[in-house]
Amino acid sequence: MTLEEVLKEAARLVTPSEEEERNVKEISQSVKELVSQIVREEGVNSEVEVYGSSARGTWLPGQRDIDVFVVMLDRERSPEDVVRLLTRRFSELGLNWTLRYAQHPYVTLQVRSYEVDIVPCYKIQPGERPVTAADRSPLHHKFLVERLKPEQALEVRLLKRFLQTIGVYGAEVKVEGFSGYLSELLVAYYGSFINVLKAATSWRPYRTYISFYESNAKFKAPLIVLDPVDPNRNAAAAVSLTSMSIFILAARRFLKRPSLSYFRQEQGDLVEGVNRVEVVYPYPNEPPDVVWGRFKRLGRALASWLRECGFRVMRWGVESDERTYVSLIYVVEQTQLPPYVIHRGPPVYDEAVDKFIEKYLGSDVVGPFVQGTRVYVIKRRRYTEITECISARLGKGGYNIRVNLYSGELIRKNPWIT
Amino acid sequence: MTLEEVLKEAARLVTPSEEEERNVKEISQSVKELVSQIVREEGVNSEVEVYGSSARGTWLPGQRDIDVFVVMLDRERSPEDVVRLLTRRFSELGLNWTLRYAQHPYVTLQVRSYEVDIVPCYKIQPGERPVTAADRSPLHHKFLVERLKPEQALEVRLLKRFLQTIGVYGAEVKVEGFSGYLSELLVAYYGSFINVLKAATSWRPYRTYISFYESNAKFKAPLIVLDPVDPNRNAAAAVSLTSMSIFILAARRFLKRPSLSYFRQEQGDLVEGVNRVEVVYPYPNEPPDVVWGRFKRLGRALASWLRECGFRVMRWGVESDERTYVSLIYVVEQTQLPPYVIHRGPPVYDEAVDKFIEKYLGSDVVGPFVQGTRVYVIKRRRYTEITECISARLGKGGYNIRVNLYSGELIRKNPWIT
Repeated sequence: MTLEEVLKEAARLVTPSEEEERNVKEISQSVKELVSQIVREEGVNSEVEVYGSSARGTWLPGQRDIDVFVVMLDRERSPEDVVRLLTRRFSELGLNWTLRYAQHPYVTLQVRSYEVDIVPCYKIQPGERPVTAADRSPLHHKFLVERLKPEQALEVRLLKRFLQTIGVYGAEVKVEGFSGYLSELLVAYYGSFINVLKAATSWRPYRTYISFYESNAKFKAPLIVLDPVDPNRNAAAAVSLTSMSIFILAARRFLKRPSLSYFRQEQGDLVEGVNRVEVVYPYPNEPPDVVWGRFKRLGRALASWLRECGFRVMRWGVESDERTYVSLIYVVEQTQLPPYVIHRGPPVYDEAVDKFIEKYLGSDVVGPFVQGTRVYVIKRRRYTEITECISARLGKGGYNIRVNLYSGELIRKNPWIT
Repeated sequence: MTLEEVLKEAARLVTPSEEEERNVKEISQSVKELVSQIVREEGVNSEVEVYGSSARGTWLPGQRDIDVFVVMLDRERSPEDVVRLLTRRFSELGLNWTLRYAQHPYVTLQVRSYEVDIVPCYKIQPGERPVTAADRSPLHHKFLVERLKPEQALEVRLLKRFLQTIGVYGAEVKVEGFSGYLSELLVAYYGSFINVLKAATSWRPYRTYISFYESNAKFKAPLIVLDPVDPNRNAAAAVSLTSMSIFILAARRFLKRPSLSYFRQEQGDLVEGVNRVEVVYPYPNEPPDVVWGRFKRLGRALASWLRECGFRVMRWGVESDERTYVSLIYVVEQTQLPPYVIHRGPPVYDEAVDKFIEKYLGSDVVGPFVQGTRVYVIKRRRYTEITECISARLGKGGYNIRVNLYSGELIRKNPWIT
């Protein structure tokens, strides 16, 4: 397929049905009206608005989130107050709501198959320091509405789906990728989906600095995209080195060989016989970002430990359904190591050589022997089974180790690359 | 044991019996007289002398070599001529002789349990350029006789046996160690066995330069000991980096913990369960130095190849009885590798990434995936059995591969270290 054919077909895949458009509009409007009425009755000095992708027509088909903001015009009430009064009234009305926390509390209202987030925030001016992270959203909305023409909504949707397929859509700790807002900023900056990809092929980690205005702000991050409403903020701060690199690679390959594979969520073929081990924990009762953060750190530490023990970790990752389990997965060369390993000591003329020799004098080792200028022994390994090695680090309880049972993405072919 | 006790007992071990002393003297004398008579009768203008350790009382007990030199006073005859006429006369006398070649031909005469090497050479003056490598021997002898007092013969013997036990005695390609002449030079230079060891603890490879006279001669070698009879020659040229380092280590340890283990030839205990593989060839009909040289080169190349294939070679070596077999031995972590291995590609922003991706597009690989800035695949190994890997390099015939049967020094404890 030519690039034009792929883009045409992809446009179909990323454009919501008329019914979905209608549903989102209807639900946005009715929740906005309900919330407006409540805050008016409760005397909260505020404007209630629909912001985010649902308001700008840039959401992806099937996405079930709608954002309604309660923008407080003064600082008399806290977001907690507003959440409290909303939930009380929702309960009286018999509505299905959940209390949630990001950096601040918000309420999620379940309306048919949609989740409407109702987020309280304070009104701020461009450049003004936000009180809560949500305070920037009205400014973001205003900026994007001014900059993006209606027909560019499709470009945003193409980019979002592309990012989603290659696994780097979302600023959450799980993904460490491109937020929806960042995707829209990139289209606003480069003009179109294809222009974003073309630009990305010459991006270089830690050297790419994108700004709508002249700026002297300094950031240390793989990708820097200055937030036009707050020049002290890098809108791409969440993008990890790997996520940025995946996008550069995908952009390069897509432009070379356009394909619909970049717009379809498919699983790659399983590669049989690759050794892997999975450490499965029950999902803790904590917000996802906290859980992903902690398990990614634990996963990295365990990967180092496995390498220290002699296991070759080829690839590792954290997976979770964010409900029942979270697991650390290690794709390894082998799950069992041979009994002996070489151990390098100091040069023969170094003071430290005496301690080394004396340590191994009585042991069941080959040597000590000399190669070049250094002394070596061949000694027994401490752990030969990967399960022993893992237990030695993690302790006895609270998890299960599954050897060669995992069948997820980490041992599959890349489903999108062309 | 104290150092004094060890040295006293070691002196006993390295001093030949009176009977052996008598035998060596008698045989040296009678062969010298026989050869003198022959060359006189054949009109070779020469002096016949016993040189080497047997003449200086510095041989090790049980050593069965005696050296008799035919030092030609002019250049009328070639060494080959002299060898020819000697062998003709030996045959007429019904003596048991063998023709041998080092860098020049010589005759070995079997007398009782001794091998007497009869070596023709040209008389040269100190500093004069030798015609054959043997021409320096009379000068070496003269230098050592002048410099070493009779009681220092014991010091030389202690050093030689010490070097022998730790496996670095001999300048031949097999050992790449310290020649007998070099051992005597070191005792002449430092005065005693213990003083040589003390000096060696502060030797540094490529920085140690020992000379009896001031000299500006430059050499590139781990150890440099200027030959006092030829300042353009490094008498320690044969000493490899490893051999020098072994000596430094042994000297250091012996001085720290003196032991008779440095004067007894013992085998270390076998360490069970270490993986190893042996490639056994029939011994070729060529001089030992040629065979050792070729098989060491082949051994090194095969070690690199095994590493390239993913086998971890912990130690390797060449062994031979110099008669029936020569074999390459590899002590390895494992003789069988797991089926998959990670393969690192270029950074995502590098031109080369396209070729890498396209190479693996149709293959049964995990990925291609990105970590950091680079692209990777997890792919099948070419060889998982070490025997396959070896055959792929060495071809089909002419050798046998033995897996986990070798039981020599390379998988034993160090028998001398203390």
